[in-house]
Amino acid sequence: MSDTPAYTPPAIWTPKPATGRFANINRPVAGPTHDKELPVGRHPLQLYSQGTPNGQKVTILLEELLAAGHAGAEYDAWLIRIMEGDQFGSGFVGANPNSKIPALVDRRGPTPVRVFESGAILVHLAESFGAFLPTEPAARAECLSWLFWQMGSAPYLGGGFGHFYAYAPVKIEYAIDRFAMEAKRQMDVLDRRLAESEYLAGPDYTIADMATWPWYGAMAKGLIYDAGEFLQVQDYTHVRRWADAIGERPAVRRGRMVNRTVGAPSEQLLERHDASDFDTRTQDKLAG
Amino acid sequence: MSDTPAYTPPAIWTPKPATGRFANINRPVAGPTHDKELPVGRHPLQLYSQGTPNGQKVTILLEELLAAGHAGAEYDAWLIRIMEGDQFGSGFVGANPNSKIPALVDRRGPTPVRVFESGAILVHLAESFGAFLPTEPAARAECLSWLFWQMGSAPYLGGGFGHFYAYAPVKIEYAIDRFAMEAKRQMDVLDRRLAESEYLAGPDYTIADMATWPWYGAMAKGLIYDAGEFLQVQDYTHVRRWADAIGERPAVRRGRMVNRTVGAPSEQLLERHDASDFDTRTQDKLAG
Repeated sequence: MSDTPAYTPPAIWTPKPATGRFANINRPVAGPTHDKELPVGRHPLQLYSQGTPNGQKVTILLEELLAAGHAGAEYDAWLIRIMEGDQFGSGFVGANPNSKIPALVDRRGPTPVRVFESGAILVHLAESFGAFLPTEPAARAECLSWLFWQMGSAPYLGGGFGHFYAYAPVKIEYAIDRFAMEAKRQMDVLDRRLAESEYLAGPDYTIADMATWPWYGAMAKGLIYDAGEFLQVQDYTHVRRWADAIGERPAVRRGRMVNRTVGAPSEQLLERHDASDFDTRTQDKLAG
Repeated sequence: MSDTPAYTPPAIWTPKPATGRFANINRPVAGPTHDKELPVGRHPLQLYSQGTPNGQKVTILLEELLAAGHAGAEYDAWLIRIMEGDQFGSGFVGANPNSKIPALVDRRGPTPVRVFESGAILVHLAESFGAFLPTEPAARAECLSWLFWQMGSAPYLGGGFGHFYAYAPVKIEYAIDRFAMEAKRQMDVLDRRLAESEYLAGPDYTIADMATWPWYGAMAKGLIYDAGEFLQVQDYTHVRRWADAIGERPAVRRGRMVNRTVGAPSEQLLERHDASDFDTRTQDKLAG
């Protein structure tokens, strides 16, 4: 094995000068680094996010809720630039003490309610609108099982495989092998499920699909980490069928654009404050 | 950096002969390896698990439900020996296509309902018994936020830090540093929360605490990965206060014993089929 130099950890860990793509936003402590209040727009739902896979989950659900006629799901989506440390502002830390996007502040009630972690936001919204989360016990259990599966699995796909394959400053064979194996196993778990079921929780499209699609749909289509050939994603035919079907939904196409900072300008809507923003893009204004 | 040999991944990943403590149970594919039905006991709730931190979450909740007078929470807890591959039996894969413990089959209704992923099992049980998951919107949102925080964070603590610090066949400095930093950040997130709140979701003990305690309570007390000094866990005084308080609960002490295969024999109840099993231990019978 080429990555087996002798190394003995010290008795007490101390941080070293960090390296790698996310070095400047990884810290050994929590809490705010600077004072900054969060903006508040005119809608009852205030989302603070960026259009990463975890961010997309929530904007997809919000757009699906609006498309299904839930007018109460109108929202302001504010851009939190994680590479610039916006998540360490005092206001954001108040909304999410974990300093990760997305964070939602629900102002529909007498006092604002914070919700953080994408999975929690999906459940909170789905329950409050009575949509995309089944109430029948077996279907609900299946939906929750796959939703939590995604939350517990994607750290191996993103923080494990993606980090060591694409982002780490050194290529470490052991780590790449470890997480490539797990990424393929997870894709196979999904592929077998989607061979027998149209959607993850059964015949109905639910928040379990919305949570899983931004990570695993993108992986199945070779769209993240430039790892399609490495992981032979063309073999996961059922995941690809499902990924295509979801990707064609108009609400998903809109949701995927919100707070997005990469890709073609036509696919980016840096902030979203009104349904008409998808027609009259705001990025020029924000950039100016 | 001592772990920076030149390594270029191949175009297409292929599995190598695996090494390390969990080599024999890590696979690049899902699905069963052998036919084996799951046993079914006399109670409506059938749990298939091992007493790892993820397994403990569910047995703690079940014991808390029973202690709170919910007689319908009586359960059979069957041991799934993950190091021996029990999770790849056909029956277990039917209950959890992800082949991880814990898996629950809820037989209270007309047809058995499977629930997998510890977080989903906690929500399923808490909702069905109306306990340990608040219904008031703000408290419920806070509980769900911390529950999902635990599910999305612990992979970095276990599959990241624990693996590279304690289990990997080689000590890789970059990987240990990466995950030690994140483990400390996560401990600080909890410490700040528990400085301001008795429990994670507020004044009441909830499934968010039950999910978090087996991982982070153990870490704060230096009980996993032999990493207490390395991560200087004595500094997380609020996590330790909370860990001690929860650890003293009789239901937690019972739940922690169920399906446990390590530690002192007096702390192990390999299978649990009746409340009296805690008095008349079954491990001798099972071992015979």
